[in-house]
Amino acid sequence: MSSCRPDIFDARCPSRAVFETLAEKWSMLILHRLVEGPRRPSELRRSIGGISDKMLVQTLRSLERNGFVARRNFAEVPPRVEYALTDLGRSLAAVVRDLDQWVETHFFDIADAQGAYDRARAAGRPAD
Amino acid sequence: MSSCRPDIFDARCPSRAVFETLAEKWSMLILHRLVEGPRRPSELRRSIGGISDKMLVQTLRSLERNGFVARRNFAEVPPRVEYALTDLGRSLAAVVRDLDQWVETHFFDIADAQGAYDRARAAGRPAD
Repeated sequence: MSSCRPDIFDARCPSRAVFETLAEKWSMLILHRLVEGPRRPSELRRSIGGISDKMLVQTLRSLERNGFVARRNFAEVPPRVEYALTDLGRSLAAVVRDLDQWVETHFFDIADAQGAYDRARAAGRPAD
Repeated sequence: MSSCRPDIFDARCPSRAVFETLAEKWSMLILHRLVEGPRRPSELRRSIGGISDKMLVQTLRSLERNGFVARRNFAEVPPRVEYALTDLGRSLAAVVRDLDQWVETHFFDIADAQGAYDRARAAGRPAD
C-alpha cells in the first residue's frame, strides 16, 4: 500500500478505498448486527431488511478482507459457518453504532425538516 | 411520515431511508468538510477528491432536505451561494467525523489485514 499520510479526501489515497468500503449502508448494518455476537449468514440475512444474498456475500467478503470480521467454519454435520467481529471490527462497530443511534434518536427532527423542505418547494421556492 | 419506532434494520421504516442518505461516502465527506465552516459549492468540489458536479449538487440537496445543511444565497454581484451546517448537521457531523478519523487512525492495521487476506487467498485457501 502507499506510504502516504492517510487522507480520505484524496481520491488516490488507499485510505479512501477503505473509507468507501465502510461508508456504505450494508457494511454498517452488518457491523452493527455483529456487535450482538457471531451470526450465521442466514441469520444476518433475516435480520437486515432488504439485503440480497449477493450483497450479503460480497459485503462479508469485503469486511473480512479489511480485517473487521472473521469467518469461522465449524466442521459439523451439517457444516456451519459464522461471522464474528475481530478486535479491529469491534472498535469500528462502536463508531458505526453511534451513527446508527444518532439517526434513530434524531429521526423525528429529520422528518420535520423534510416536511418543511417539501412544503417550501411546493409553495414555489425556485429549484437550485 | 410513519409513526413506527425508528428501526434502521427494517427496510420499510422511514428511518432506514434517512440512514441510507447518510451511510454514503459523499454525504459523509461533505458533512466532514463543512465542520470547518461554510463553503461554496466550488470549494467543496475542489477539496473532495473525485466528486462530480452532479453528485455534489444531488448530495447537497439531499443533505438540505434532511435538515443537515442550510443553503445561503447572498445577493451580491456576482451571486454567491454557500452551504453551512445546521445545528442538527453539526451534531451529526461530530459522529461522522469520528468514523473518518477511525479510518485514518487504523488505516495501517487495515492494510496489513488486506495483505494477509490476499496472501492467504493466493496460497490457495479456497474461496467461500
